[in-house]
Amino acid sequence: MRGIHARTMLLSRVYRHFFCFRMHHHRVSQLFQPLTVIPKDATLKKEETTSLSQKLMVNCGILSSRSNGMYAFLPLGQRALTKLTKVIDEEMASVNAQRLSLPLLTPGQLWKITGRWESTGQELLKVKDRHEKDYVLSPTHEEAIVNFIADIYPFSHRHLPLRLYQITSKIRDEMKPRFGLLRCKEFLMKDLYTFDVSEEAAVSTYMEICKAYDRVFQRIGVPFIKVEGDCGNIGGSFSHEYHYPAAIGEDTLLLCQKCGTATNAELLSDSSHTCSGCGEHLTKTMGIEVGHTFCLGTKYSKPLNCCYQNEKGKPSLMQMGCYGLGVSRILAAAVEVLSQGEQIRWPWILAPYKVCIISPKKGSKEAKAVSWVDHLAQVISNIPSLQDDVIIDDRETLTIGKRVLEAKKTGYPIIIVVGKKACELVPLFEVIDMIKESTENLTQRQVLEYLREYVKHCST
Amino acid sequence: MRGIHARTMLLSRVYRHFFCFRMHHHRVSQLFQPLTVIPKDATLKKEETTSLSQKLMVNCGILSSRSNGMYAFLPLGQRALTKLTKVIDEEMASVNAQRLSLPLLTPGQLWKITGRWESTGQELLKVKDRHEKDYVLSPTHEEAIVNFIADIYPFSHRHLPLRLYQITSKIRDEMKPRFGLLRCKEFLMKDLYTFDVSEEAAVSTYMEICKAYDRVFQRIGVPFIKVEGDCGNIGGSFSHEYHYPAAIGEDTLLLCQKCGTATNAELLSDSSHTCSGCGEHLTKTMGIEVGHTFCLGTKYSKPLNCCYQNEKGKPSLMQMGCYGLGVSRILAAAVEVLSQGEQIRWPWILAPYKVCIISPKKGSKEAKAVSWVDHLAQVISNIPSLQDDVIIDDRETLTIGKRVLEAKKTGYPIIIVVGKKACELVPLFEVIDMIKESTENLTQRQVLEYLREYVKHCST
Repeated sequence: MRGIHARTMLLSRVYRHFFCFRMHHHRVSQLFQPLTVIPKDATLKKEETTSLSQKLMVNCGILSSRSNGMYAFLPLGQRALTKLTKVIDEEMASVNAQRLSLPLLTPGQLWKITGRWESTGQELLKVKDRHEKDYVLSPTHEEAIVNFIADIYPFSHRHLPLRLYQITSKIRDEMKPRFGLLRCKEFLMKDLYTFDVSEEAAVSTYMEICKAYDRVFQRIGVPFIKVEGDCGNIGGSFSHEYHYPAAIGEDTLLLCQKCGTATNAELLSDSSHTCSGCGEHLTKTMGIEVGHTFCLGTKYSKPLNCCYQNEKGKPSLMQMGCYGLGVSRILAAAVEVLSQGEQIRWPWILAPYKVCIISPKKGSKEAKAVSWVDHLAQVISNIPSLQDDVIIDDRETLTIGKRVLEAKKTGYPIIIVVGKKACELVPLFEVIDMIKESTENLTQRQVLEYLREYVKHCST
Repeated sequence: MRGIHARTMLLSRVYRHFFCFRMHHHRVSQLFQPLTVIPKDATLKKEETTSLSQKLMVNCGILSSRSNGMYAFLPLGQRALTKLTKVIDEEMASVNAQRLSLPLLTPGQLWKITGRWESTGQELLKVKDRHEKDYVLSPTHEEAIVNFIADIYPFSHRHLPLRLYQITSKIRDEMKPRFGLLRCKEFLMKDLYTFDVSEEAAVSTYMEICKAYDRVFQRIGVPFIKVEGDCGNIGGSFSHEYHYPAAIGEDTLLLCQKCGTATNAELLSDSSHTCSGCGEHLTKTMGIEVGHTFCLGTKYSKPLNCCYQNEKGKPSLMQMGCYGLGVSRILAAAVEVLSQGEQIRWPWILAPYKVCIISPKKGSKEAKAVSWVDHLAQVISNIPSLQDDVIIDDRETLTIGKRVLEAKKTGYPIIIVVGKKACELVPLFEVIDMIKESTENLTQRQVLEYLREYVKHCST
């Protein structure tokens, strides 16, 4: 009796294990990824100004255009956004920045005080509530956060430095939205605001935050250029911009090949094409702005009277900085820069799934190898940084070839085919590496070694 | 030489360990938690209609009122929201629902087609963009998602059932916002939309989703009542509501103590206070609505022509359901129900930090016990479900008593004091359990056993 009971227990454990495991892996058959099939003779409407990233992400069911300049993030896009948000959260935590969220609607009165109610122009979308009170659909939150901090009184100097950020949707009523997420009306942005006791402390904060920004961009891994920036409508004493160099970029950057300095051309007079540092001729590059840091001084704390109590108990204006990352824009710009032709390329760290396993076709000679699929998914998921990052293309009525093509288009960095060679005495799996652009037939043990090695070398 | 090298290696490892460890623990001295100090003789302005949760969360630096009916989530509130979001994501994944995000702005035209442009009344906030195009600041997304799905053509019956949800900010221009997050103008909501081939399949989906909702509320652990609901402005054939019973609730619920059925009083005529099932007298309770599920039929798919291709290749209307969870409202309602007097109580699973360790006061007799603090934080963080859930109140110029009081107000479920008894030969730590309302002096080993036992029994 005891033996039977033990066996039942064991079976139930095996069953449970098997059950969990079936539940755990994501499957393409279940994935909502509406592909756009474009007839070969289709002509784009003249007014559509599109970009490679927009075309690929929309056609591949990652984004959907819902209205002029407004996009829905579909499940794969949402996953990529979540991954980018995690990287940003981690780097913000490393500089002691704390996350909060402010309302999207900011009282218009605050924007009137700083003068931006008028100066921002038509890009600022305004709304009146039922009581005729003015609100701004905030494109940025300097007014809102400074007013909030100013409301906290007394605010002791001991609570500074203070670093607060949010990752929320912002609205800008673009005259002519274009290039998909690169210039749209509703976008996801990370905005950080810093508060310090003195100019000196604010500059030191500024440098620390810039280093955190450098780390964010290094982890994403797309080459970037940091340039002296234009303070524009945000204002302040100095700023830097982070750009992804790309032909479609809307900013002209001037780079000095000799001393390495870089500047946004808006800052220079038309004629000045020599480096102010070394006199070398400057090279022109177009860039997509993906981040912007501002040393603000008291530009906002003064009109909104945002003070701390200094050591003598006297009110003193806070010295501020603000720092933006275009979260949804980074995603699209990375795809824009990395992709080629019909295939999306994601930065390794942002890929919606890192590994796609393709099962054998039903009724084919290799069909019996299907038992390998879940097992392989399981052992790969056991690699800590690949947990929840494996998807199985289980649409077994489609040929392997068609599914490989779709996996390449979607941009999974590693595609593993369980095909003919998986039926051999020593089963081999075809590992298609889209980053190294190589294909190898490997045993299960070699697949795991390959991926472990990969994970080790790719920034995470 | 080798010996020296080994020792250097070891030291560097110890140093690195120590370094990571200092960085890792959250500290109250670093936390942005602006407390409101209310003078004892203060009188509330007459027009402020407040609730216990609003008062506690605002005074305790968890929320900040930024404008009439609009709140900022401060770091502790943001952490609680993130935890609730995680629970919801997990339960949605368990029923194969996929997360996406739709724009906040929905074209007004879609709301005109369904008739809700007019019927929603003044609660619907509308805006015109610079090209005079109408948009809705969406309080819900039936129109937006149905229009999106309808745009995907052909949509094969093989892709159904489909379940899509988002967790995003919604806007409702309340006439009279009140009770903090319980009735405000900008709120965080989870909205799920389901699509099925037939009424039968839609009802089966409905039941499956209701079970997932039950699990969400069971995991939060606050007692809830599920009642037959009023379809209201959303419409459809039937609905259920999830309520937290509370005196401040704005819905009247009628419960049958005998057969267990429960109904929203809005559904019944004034005189009907007997159970339709068993004739028993019904008991009245007030409830805060925290979730609502609707079986919609073709209410939205019909006007917006949302079809799938059936097996014969013919278009057929999709059968829908929609399911809401008031994410920010659940947070406040849970605090409303659980808290007493001046102290917040969080559901265990949503507490911003689960354990607060209070270090000894500087210059006191027990000051030398300070070396225990980081160590204790480290060993507790090693319990998997308490990782990143420990905060140290390191404000060592304040007395232990003052800090314990503040920790109780903030609602950390477990408070551990490193005080006098930590200096004894066998160091003891005072464990204040706010859920069991008990205090015990335990050794380090006992503290860990206590917490492990706790974690095992509390739903996570």
